[in-house]
Amino acid sequence: MAPRNVKLTIAYDGTDFHGWQIQPGYRTAQGVLTDAVKDLFGPYARICGASRTDAGVHALGQVGLIQIDSPIPTENIPRALNGKLPPDIAVTAAEDAPRGIDIIGDVTSKLYRYTIHTGAVRPVLDIRYCWYLWHPLDIEAMHAAAQYLLGRNDFRSFAASADRRESTVRTIFRCDVARTGDWVHIDVEGDGFLYNMVRNIVGTLVDLGHGRWTPDQMKDILNARDRTRAGRLAPAAGLCLMWVKY
Amino acid sequence: MAPRNVKLTIAYDGTDFHGWQIQPGYRTAQGVLTDAVKDLFGPYARICGASRTDAGVHALGQVGLIQIDSPIPTENIPRALNGKLPPDIAVTAAEDAPRGIDIIGDVTSKLYRYTIHTGAVRPVLDIRYCWYLWHPLDIEAMHAAAQYLLGRNDFRSFAASADRRESTVRTIFRCDVARTGDWVHIDVEGDGFLYNMVRNIVGTLVDLGHGRWTPDQMKDILNARDRTRAGRLAPAAGLCLMWVKY
Repeated sequence: MAPRNVKLTIAYDGTDFHGWQIQPGYRTAQGVLTDAVKDLFGPYARICGASRTDAGVHALGQVGLIQIDSPIPTENIPRALNGKLPPDIAVTAAEDAPRGIDIIGDVTSKLYRYTIHTGAVRPVLDIRYCWYLWHPLDIEAMHAAAQYLLGRNDFRSFAASADRRESTVRTIFRCDVARTGDWVHIDVEGDGFLYNMVRNIVGTLVDLGHGRWTPDQMKDILNARDRTRAGRLAPAAGLCLMWVKY
Repeated sequence: MAPRNVKLTIAYDGTDFHGWQIQPGYRTAQGVLTDAVKDLFGPYARICGASRTDAGVHALGQVGLIQIDSPIPTENIPRALNGKLPPDIAVTAAEDAPRGIDIIGDVTSKLYRYTIHTGAVRPVLDIRYCWYLWHPLDIEAMHAAAQYLLGRNDFRSFAASADRRESTVRTIFRCDVARTGDWVHIDVEGDGFLYNMVRNIVGTLVDLGHGRWTPDQMKDILNARDRTRAGRLAPAAGLCLMWVKY
């Protein structure tokens, strides 16, 4: 039987993972999944992911690709793997993927959601999944500023220690800042993201929402192509990879 | 200045607490709060709670009483204490209480909510706050059975190792089982609860919802006054103390 490609949708609570990517000596999402995949499909099975989420970042819609030659029906794969995975990670869906799929290169769009809580008291049952900020935020200013990021731009100002030889150009399709009660969500959709890019954008928007800059200064920060011009790095806990599209 | 009573509303994620009650060598909610209260109001300050929640049980509306002689305005107490508390516990409100209040004896009603998830895949971002059960539950049968528990009854069948000398009679005002999508909530309101009583009721309702008993057999289980006749103990993670009324 020829090996076939299966695309998995994966959710995890990033709190106790040292990010997605497998690293000897660390508990990572890819590492835990690799153990389960090998256990089920044999020692040569492996899993590649669409996004390298950082330590502490969560996922509801990470995508992973496995190549298997098992006759197991695709729809039974999530339950089979979930029985071998710890409680803070799960495969939520599986579908057959074309033979030539490039799980990183074929991505057309990804959505990251950042969650902030602005109530008078920190939300103890959600504290692992948000950034708690009790200073008032100017949501309208943040949303207006975010619109300057749309389109194809050089995001070097929002890259953590960018390698000068690599391109820092990415396309952002959407960057929406919206409030629901005490909660603020920042949704950033793009064709790809630099290391720490979403968290740097969120930290900059928060500094701006606290009055450090006016919305149009976001354009200057972007154009400066200089990390020191942008704001702080938002904590990992508030960030979640919502979906990846192909 | 004469000491005054202040009633605090307290929320905590019970996962990393060994229950409410202070115990040397264990991290407990009362212990962590006692440290903060002493830090703020002096070495003789202490805090008494309305409910002794078990290890792993959460609270959104635990009530604690402090006696203080500080001139601090009551409305400033939550923020002052929260600055000294770890992220998984917070004081959400404070109000002046009458001098003669008995924080345990004067309770008229408490609501515990138990949360179950019944989807095809475990909810990784809520796994600390629910019981994940993928076998289908007969919610209508569970709700019908729960109605036999209402009123003033001897709940010995649902008590963990009851001391024969102590009364096991309590009054349940409400026991509702309701589904919202993949989530099932069991709300139990009563004037007080025996040790493990809510979790034993939930475990019994779940066994019944899986077909072990018919709804009217709940009456026999209650009347037997025998723990071995009831169902299993539901895990602590799904339970949350929602409020306490006086």
